[in-house]
Amino acid sequence: MSPHNVEEIVQKVMTRIKEEKQTSSEIPVGVSARHCHLDRETFKLLFGDDAELTKKADLSQPDQFAANETITVAGPKGSISKVRILGPLRSSNQVEISQTDAFKVGLKPPIRQSGDISGSCPVTIIGPYGSVYLNEGLIIAQAHIHMHTNDAERYGVEDGNVVSIRFENEKRDVHFSKTVIRVSENYRLEMHIDTDEANAGSIVTGQTGELVKVMADES
Amino acid sequence: MSPHNVEEIVQKVMTRIKEEKQTSSEIPVGVSARHCHLDRETFKLLFGDDAELTKKADLSQPDQFAANETITVAGPKGSISKVRILGPLRSSNQVEISQTDAFKVGLKPPIRQSGDISGSCPVTIIGPYGSVYLNEGLIIAQAHIHMHTNDAERYGVEDGNVVSIRFENEKRDVHFSKTVIRVSENYRLEMHIDTDEANAGSIVTGQTGELVKVMADES
Repeated sequence: MSPHNVEEIVQKVMTRIKEEKQTSSEIPVGVSARHCHLDRETFKLLFGDDAELTKKADLSQPDQFAANETITVAGPKGSISKVRILGPLRSSNQVEISQTDAFKVGLKPPIRQSGDISGSCPVTIIGPYGSVYLNEGLIIAQAHIHMHTNDAERYGVEDGNVVSIRFENEKRDVHFSKTVIRVSENYRLEMHIDTDEANAGSIVTGQTGELVKVMADES
Repeated sequence: MSPHNVEEIVQKVMTRIKEEKQTSSEIPVGVSARHCHLDRETFKLLFGDDAELTKKADLSQPDQFAANETITVAGPKGSISKVRILGPLRSSNQVEISQTDAFKVGLKPPIRQSGDISGSCPVTIIGPYGSVYLNEGLIIAQAHIHMHTNDAERYGVEDGNVVSIRFENEKRDVHFSKTVIRVSENYRLEMHIDTDEANAGSIVTGQTGELVKVMADES
C-alpha cells in the first residue's frame, strides 16, 4: 500500500466515523411550555356540556395537538392563565408546570414522568364555565426522550433507560443526566424539556442535543 | 503483615481518599435571584437626593449586602417589581435577571460575566422617586465560581478557567459546563447560578456541586 493510499483510506474512515457519530447521537429537542391534559368530564365542567376541544396546531407526536382552549391554574400564592390544553382528551387529568411556575402559584408538584400522577400535587383549574379542584395531577415533567422502536435500536437503548444529553451553546453548556427514554411504535424521536431546563441552557425547540452517555435504568 | 492489618490499612486509605475527594471537589452554591447594582447618581434619581442605601442582610461575599430598597425593571412586554438592590453602591449600573424574566418583560439581555456590560441590553428601572432609562446594563449572569486564591490553588484552577460542575438530585442531574472561575483575595468560595439554572436542577442555596472537569480557558 502506498503512503498516498493510506492517507486516503484514513480520510474516508474518519469521514465515515464523523457521519455515524452525527447521525447516531443527535437528538432534536422540543421545549414544553406549561400545559394540561384533561378527561372529558373535567373538560365539560370547565367549558360547558356542549363544548368540544378544537385543534389549534398539530404537535410533533402523532395525533397529538395543541387546542385553542386554555385554562387557568391556581394555587395559594397566585394563578397562571392561558395554560394550553393538549388534545385529544385523555382518561385522566394531568397539569404540567415548571418549578418557576410552581413557586409563583405556591404549590409543590413532584418531578414525574407523564402518566405517573398517583399521589402528585392537588391543584385548582379554572375554565370559562366552572372550576375544578383536582385531588392530584399537578407535576413537573422529568426530561425524557420519545423514541420509535427503530430509534431505540439505532441508539442501543431501551424503554426506561436513563441517559445524559448535552446541549452546547455559546455561553451555556448543560448536560441533563437523568433523561428517561420512552420507546413506542407510536412515538417520533424528540426530547422534551420544560422551560426552566430550556432557559438554563439557552435551548430552543428544534436544536439538537448530543447523547453522551447511557447512565442506568430508571430508579 | 497479617490479613487483619491489610484490611485495616485499606480501610484507612479508602476513608482518606473519600475525605480528600469530598474536600477537593465539592463547591457550595448560592442561587442568585434577580437583582441590581447601582451607582450613586442613579440611586438618587430613583430614591431621592437624601436617600441612603440601607442593609437588610449580609451576603456571602465579604462586605456585600442585600439592601432594603428594591426597584421595578420594565420592558416593552411587562415589568417585574421588588428587584433587590445589592450594596454597596458601585461605579456603574448592572441589572441581572433570568431568561424567564427576560421573556416576561420582552427584552433580550446577553449572557455575560458580572462587570462585562459594554453593549449589553438597555432597560428602564423605576424607583419611588423617579425612573431611569439605562442605555446598557441588563444582563443574564453566566454561571461562575468565586474563589479565594487559596481555593484556586487547592482545586488547581486559575482565574478565567471554564469548568464543569455537576449537581445530582433525585430526579434531576445537571452539569453546567461553561462555569467561569473568578479568583480574588477578596472572594469566598461559592458558585453562583441564577433561578433558571437552579430550577432546572432542583438546586437550592447551600447545596454543593461537584467539580467534574476543567474544560478550558474562557473564550
